[in-house]
Amino acid sequence: MQTPSYRCALIVGAGRGLSASLAHLFAAHGMRVSLAARDIEKLRALRDAGMQTFACDAAREDDVARLFRDVEAAGGAPDVVVYNASARTRGPFVEIVPADVQRAFTVTAFGAFCVAQQAARRMLPKRHGAILFTGASASIKGYAQSAPFAMAKFALRGLAQSLARELGPQGIHVAHFVIDGGIREPGREPPSPAPDALLDPDAIARTYLHVLQQQRSAWTWEVEMRPWVEKF
Amino acid sequence: MQTPSYRCALIVGAGRGLSASLAHLFAAHGMRVSLAARDIEKLRALRDAGMQTFACDAAREDDVARLFRDVEAAGGAPDVVVYNASARTRGPFVEIVPADVQRAFTVTAFGAFCVAQQAARRMLPKRHGAILFTGASASIKGYAQSAPFAMAKFALRGLAQSLARELGPQGIHVAHFVIDGGIREPGREPPSPAPDALLDPDAIARTYLHVLQQQRSAWTWEVEMRPWVEKF
Amino acid sequence: MQTPSYRCALIVGAGRGLSASLAHLFAAHGMRVSLAARDIEKLRALRDAGMQTFACDAAREDDVARLFRDVEAAGGAPDVVVYNASARTRGPFVEIVPADVQRAFTVTAFGAFCVAQQAARRMLPKRHGAILFTGASASIKGYAQSAPFAMAKFALRGLAQSLARELGPQGIHVAHFVIDGGIREPGREPPSPAPDALLDPDAIARTYLHVLQQQRSAWTWEVEMRPWVEKF
Amino acid sequence: MQTPSYRCALIVGAGRGLSASLAHLFAAHGMRVSLAARDIEKLRALRDAGMQTFACDAAREDDVARLFRDVEAAGGAPDVVVYNASARTRGPFVEIVPADVQRAFTVTAFGAFCVAQQAARRMLPKRHGAILFTGASASIKGYAQSAPFAMAKFALRGLAQSLARELGPQGIHVAHFVIDGGIREPGREPPSPAPDALLDPDAIARTYLHVLQQQRSAWTWEVEMRPWVEKF
Repeated sequence: MQTPSYRCALIVGAGRGLSASLAHLFAAHGMRVSLAARDIEKLRALRDAGMQTFACDAAREDDVARLFRDVEAAGGAPDVVVYNASARTRGPFVEIVPADVQRAFTVTAFGAFCVAQQAARRMLPKRHGAILFTGASASIKGYAQSAPFAMAKFALRGLAQSLARELGPQGIHVAHFVIDGGIREPGREPPSPAPDALLDPDAIARTYLHVLQQQRSAWTWEVEMRPWVEKF
Repeated sequence: MQTPSYRCALIVGAGRGLSASLAHLFAAHGMRVSLAARDIEKLRALRDAGMQTFACDAAREDDVARLFRDVEAAGGAPDVVVYNASARTRGPFVEIVPADVQRAFTVTAFGAFCVAQQAARRMLPKRHGAILFTGASASIKGYAQSAPFAMAKFALRGLAQSLARELGPQGIHVAHFVIDGGIREPGREPPSPAPDALLDPDAIARTYLHVLQQQRSAWTWEVEMRPWVEKF
Repeated sequence: MQTPSYRCALIVGAGRGLSASLAHLFAAHGMRVSLAARDIEKLRALRDAGMQTFACDAAREDDVARLFRDVEAAGGAPDVVVYNASARTRGPFVEIVPADVQRAFTVTAFGAFCVAQQAARRMLPKRHGAILFTGASASIKGYAQSAPFAMAKFALRGLAQSLARELGPQGIHVAHFVIDGGIREPGREPPSPAPDALLDPDAIARTYLHVLQQQRSAWTWEVEMRPWVEKF
Repeated sequence: MQTPSYRCALIVGAGRGLSASLAHLFAAHGMRVSLAARDIEKLRALRDAGMQTFACDAAREDDVARLFRDVEAAGGAPDVVVYNASARTRGPFVEIVPADVQRAFTVTAFGAFCVAQQAARRMLPKRHGAILFTGASASIKGYAQSAPFAMAKFALRGLAQSLARELGPQGIHVAHFVIDGGIREPGREPPSPAPDALLDPDAIARTYLHVLQQQRSAWTWEVEMRPWVEKF
């Protein structure tokens, strides 16, 4: 039995270190890589490195539909889709602005729904594809003073788990990554004296790639990653 | 050390058997009971039984603010608030209408946020009160063909857990109830030959009341309930 | 539908505050109460209060069989059995004595198995009874420097969950209580300035009693309890 | 930052397909591989392939101490240790023989403790090494008619989690693998018409290897794997 072979990746919610790390790693493994973000300016370096970039507000259903048509037109439907976008607000519960709850949900979870649905429509007829979601500590633990983010990241995990159960037996690999700790920002000096107390985005990306390479007799649906010194 | 003493309960999302059971049980234990629902017609029987009823769309921030002012004016701020409202959609993932995802989240989780925030603003100055959320099997397990409900109920649980951590040490008891199974509808014949294969709403209500009666040295934040014959 | 009615409780692993609180509360609700412990001297106060006490090493299969025969002879088979015994060892992993791992497992989990099996044999023919297990923070979180206790309490939880699935549909209520925090020792001054920062054993006992009173359409299999100020 | 480099693996509990797959994969990646089992005859094929094999009853503390001395003498202390041994019993709870509970725990969890302790003593001074534990569906779900295995596998998970928290910050990577489904036996025809409805041990082994290759800024402590068609 062979490991799967993916050709074309779409990464939504670019602009953080993780999206760039994924883009470079996937490209190095022979995939065509597209990236989408609301603020396309953030993607300039990746565009300059030869990747296709698209402006898209993932929380807008129409935008997402157009994104998939554009990616498809530019080189074929993606068989790997990664959803990285999120929004958060912190503060005492009684001071949270309700609109921020809506925004956290919309960017973090509703956008993921729209993107996953467009992806699934293209993957299901071929019974081939992978949809990966990026979670956080807040996906499995609701922290004080962080209700909107807990709501949004819990919702994203509920989506991912429901899709793993529904789409897995139809040949689509759905996986959810719990990134439990701070991600090191590229270009910044690593913290000293513990250079690896923050997650290296290149290291995270290698585990995403590994999950893509899993043969379907032994699929993983959820992976936690945290720095060796992180309390949990 | 004494068990807490609550005087005034507000139940939001009335109309199901559980809300009526809670209303009657709380009233029987000496609490003043108010109920709120979008469709106030559903509350007629409870109004006829002497309870105060209010029309309110919990997903509308302004409605919720007005509801709390009205309840307060009618007899004092509630020191127990129960959130029961939810909305769901089922079907193959690729056929789900995105608006139904928004609706499921808004009714099930965003409304809970608005209600809990109004409640917390009144409870925190007194360091006294309880906020109870009604979950479902989908709160802890994302089922196939049910992504919107999984997203919404996971989000509600994230809210409840975040609030338990934030408000508990300030004297507010936050609890989340996972109702894992179907609830028997009042007035309908119980199923035969297993009359208790569906959760009796009166039985559920007794566990809500018990949680309210817990002394704060031994608070429960989450309770699962399921029929004895339910698979889990 | 009625709530269940239990008549005869057996509490194993007495000597801590919780066992005494359970004994007094159950007795006050009309149950005949028996207690068993390795060191029967610890039970003197309860014996003086009119309860039956038995010497028993729950980790010895024969002792447990004899205990049940003796309890039965003295007044009928118990329809409520509570298992409270546990043993623990702390320290750096490399310094743990392997025999302490065996002891933690034997006292905490194997004893629970032996007791539950004797109980189930008597309850199943009547399709009536309840078996309650006392867990701890370590039941759901394996702490550093505490491997033996994590192993033992995780094992106990595995036993409780397996029994809930197997015996529940046969009419036996199996429940597991996660006591997440320190229990206040009776007779000792409560800590100041936070008198309820430790769990009051009487408060815990009331939740055990409530679970016994649940109607079987809405059974709980696991309850966490923790002080309002406890981090979790 | 580099990925770790391991040189010498010891696999305990050999004889199943997974141990052989791990041995071959680790060897192909340049590691010296030793295997230990109670029944050394099972290891003949691996010995013939050039690997070192040792007879050892992992549930006997002295045997395990000797095993580590022998492995060390033969080529240096292992910096990767995998624990695969387990024992189970199925059947109605009231018919389980208590000795089988002890055996399931001893082989599955106590042996893992003894092996991990010997391993940790050698790894901690170098702040380098990895200890991997093989779990099962029963590690996270206690099934009916399977109390002994649930107790043993829950205990193993408690051990693994405690060690991850204690040893991780000291540079030892501890990971627990939940193998959720049947493993295909090598040499047997795969089931038809679903050749990948059972986990391929070679596929599982690749995920173990990936976890070993994780850089320590992004360590995983637990991975679930299941066939694409498995219900969960």
